[in-house]
Amino acid sequence: MSSPAVTYARQNQPRFLDELKALLRIPSVSTLPENKDDCRRAAEALASELTRIGLENARLIETAGNPLVYADWLHNAGKPTALFYGHYDVQPTDPLEEWISPPFEPTERNGNLYARGAVDDKGQVWAQIKALESLMASNGELPLNVRVLFEGEEEVGGEGIADFVASRPPELKADFALISDTELFAPGLPTLCVGLRGMIYTEIEVRGAKSDLHSGMYGGAAPNPFMALAQMLARLKDEEGRILIPGFYDDILPPSPEELQAWHSLPFDEEQYRISEVGSLTLVGEPGYSVLERTWARPTLDVHGIPGGFTGAGAKTVIPAKALAKVSMRLVPGMKPAKIFALYKAYAEKIAPAGVEVEVRLISAGEPCLIPVDNRYIQAATRALKEVWGKETVFIRSGGSVPIVGDFARHLGIPSVMMGFGLPDDNIHAPNEKFHLKNFELGIESIVRFLEEAGK
Amino acid sequence: MSSPAVTYARQNQPRFLDELKALLRIPSVSTLPENKDDCRRAAEALASELTRIGLENARLIETAGNPLVYADWLHNAGKPTALFYGHYDVQPTDPLEEWISPPFEPTERNGNLYARGAVDDKGQVWAQIKALESLMASNGELPLNVRVLFEGEEEVGGEGIADFVASRPPELKADFALISDTELFAPGLPTLCVGLRGMIYTEIEVRGAKSDLHSGMYGGAAPNPFMALAQMLARLKDEEGRILIPGFYDDILPPSPEELQAWHSLPFDEEQYRISEVGSLTLVGEPGYSVLERTWARPTLDVHGIPGGFTGAGAKTVIPAKALAKVSMRLVPGMKPAKIFALYKAYAEKIAPAGVEVEVRLISAGEPCLIPVDNRYIQAATRALKEVWGKETVFIRSGGSVPIVGDFARHLGIPSVMMGFGLPDDNIHAPNEKFHLKNFELGIESIVRFLEEAGK
Repeated sequence: MSSPAVTYARQNQPRFLDELKALLRIPSVSTLPENKDDCRRAAEALASELTRIGLENARLIETAGNPLVYADWLHNAGKPTALFYGHYDVQPTDPLEEWISPPFEPTERNGNLYARGAVDDKGQVWAQIKALESLMASNGELPLNVRVLFEGEEEVGGEGIADFVASRPPELKADFALISDTELFAPGLPTLCVGLRGMIYTEIEVRGAKSDLHSGMYGGAAPNPFMALAQMLARLKDEEGRILIPGFYDDILPPSPEELQAWHSLPFDEEQYRISEVGSLTLVGEPGYSVLERTWARPTLDVHGIPGGFTGAGAKTVIPAKALAKVSMRLVPGMKPAKIFALYKAYAEKIAPAGVEVEVRLISAGEPCLIPVDNRYIQAATRALKEVWGKETVFIRSGGSVPIVGDFARHLGIPSVMMGFGLPDDNIHAPNEKFHLKNFELGIESIVRFLEEAGK
Repeated sequence: MSSPAVTYARQNQPRFLDELKALLRIPSVSTLPENKDDCRRAAEALASELTRIGLENARLIETAGNPLVYADWLHNAGKPTALFYGHYDVQPTDPLEEWISPPFEPTERNGNLYARGAVDDKGQVWAQIKALESLMASNGELPLNVRVLFEGEEEVGGEGIADFVASRPPELKADFALISDTELFAPGLPTLCVGLRGMIYTEIEVRGAKSDLHSGMYGGAAPNPFMALAQMLARLKDEEGRILIPGFYDDILPPSPEELQAWHSLPFDEEQYRISEVGSLTLVGEPGYSVLERTWARPTLDVHGIPGGFTGAGAKTVIPAKALAKVSMRLVPGMKPAKIFALYKAYAEKIAPAGVEVEVRLISAGEPCLIPVDNRYIQAATRALKEVWGKETVFIRSGGSVPIVGDFARHLGIPSVMMGFGLPDDNIHAPNEKFHLKNFELGIESIVRFLEEAGK
């Protein structure tokens, strides 16, 4: 690699890492109202850095929630325009007691950087910015045109950016998007993600008596919303992992035989995955599908928590007046979030046991998506990755959701290159989130070389 | 009523009420470790008052938890000995925001005294003490011998008092117990409770993956402990209220045809009860049984809360590593807590879905009980109540548990007179607990006259 920008990146790596740590110390948790100011602080830090490295028009774009961060550099007429995307908000940290080092005190350990947001997604946002800095500093210009759009509500549904993108503003005119919010399939294996599951995140609220009641006096006569909720949840998904909502599976587009064949040759051992990543007695899920099929190409339904009622230590003999379940469904290509929510809501209302009232609410929704692998930007990325990592790039999907990919396709008509540098055991959304330091470094180099290739 | 003690009680009623308010201001919540000192303060206040009114040997008896309060007056040789029982601990106050006046600032409103513990059970404990004071102050002696034993862990299983009673100490030698921790069947209707349901209170813990996982990455492969728990709970009880644990109903002794007939003539309207007390769309429970049968003479199973997982506002896409359910079962005469727990535990372990580990824990247990109505103390109580309230006494059961009644029968060989003065809508264990002021007053008079009758 003779790129001066790569040389610059290598020489400045220790400073890049220190700067990332400063960003990670800002607790920009978008689900918690008390961190609202911290989210804005993170946004301002990004805008300021984008200006410092030579981008123009850097500013915050206000939304109903946390602001977007925008900047551009558009002085390479005749070259394509890249739209950079990442998010500066992070997940909550609970359960806090399980973190080995505090979530907002970035700590290096075993070749990794541990912090909430280390890899999801502040570390990858910083890799993008540092790639741009390396190109600007070593060449005085970028090899193509660049627009940057970071959001601060990815972990809470991303409504602000969705509205902004849907308005198709001139600021977002671009030829392709570069999204850095995914992971390598395995350590050292360059990976492009070309498929994502969508999601609907919902709440089911069940109400029984008008107030909390004593379970001795009223047990056997008063409806119990927690029991009703349990009975309903058990009718949403059977013990083998099949979702029981009528019509749920109707519109699924299965992967091609070629794609399934490629997945088969990936370095993946289900038993190893069970032991080292999941750590459960057995894996679960729909019979007849491999783990990669189940997590990439099959929908699923999960319960995230059942708040309400008595949750303290010891015993309280109460029949709570109401109960709430947080339920999400992952969707695969072919499935439409609005249709699935309607099917789910109708079914949940139908299976409500006698005595309780049920309210089903949609909290957020995102489309599933598939990217064709024969477009020129995916091809440029494939060449860049091969050069930096020394291996052929693999095309995978992800079970997670990056709703923005669907929005970019639908409203801006552009394909996304999902080039991310996380690892499967990075503990995103969990205690002890980390970013492998080598991946931060090679991530910057990969983005540098991708832009150089895409600008050719 | 020509009893000088009744006259004394009426003349001193305002002071009695002020004293009760002082006791209610002590937040003696036994489920919360942070209120441990408050529980002791409440115990000390009771011991001090028992000494002040003329009882002897007043002292705290230490247990592994909150102390017992003991006192006696044994100077009426040849007369029977009564063992007074009540509890000074109270339930937690959550949800705090639903209280109209703060739970530990006793407030008079609409002829009621509102506070946590107003009727369950500090108000009734105070009625016992004030009855003893009225008799001592007006006669210089009691009409029989009295021992007092108050506990501070009734709301958390009462292990301390259970151990103490099981040791059959000489301090508890008595002919009958007077327990004031129940309610009138209807306003103004003198009531003796002669049956109680027992209970086992349990926790089911379900563990899946070794740590919290991202539901996008792992959904469809990793076990979800909340879903597994919901599936298990749905297999414990069907939607019509039948408990599905094999053998659960085998040992039940049904009420006699005479008792069922008496319940039929009680002033009770199921629709009115649904509207004014429960406030749900419909009542629930086993088909083929009336509400009184379902709540007094049939077992049931309730879920009180499902702590763990994500319970904040908004969305967090986590598959929690574990989930917990707080589950209790109410038991009726014939059922043995230890046997029921064993049946339940074995069944819960058997129905655990694949991929999760299950641990079933017993938090507390209490025997169901039935008191024969033809004993002389029940008869004396019946006469006293008729005189004070001007109506025939009704014999009812309660769906709640007073485990001490079973302990007194088993270890001390004495019957209990459950004479309580709560009302069905007193909101015990819920926000806005209250004690009807008239019932506090007539409760004191009823206990005075009962002791006079029992001492004849």
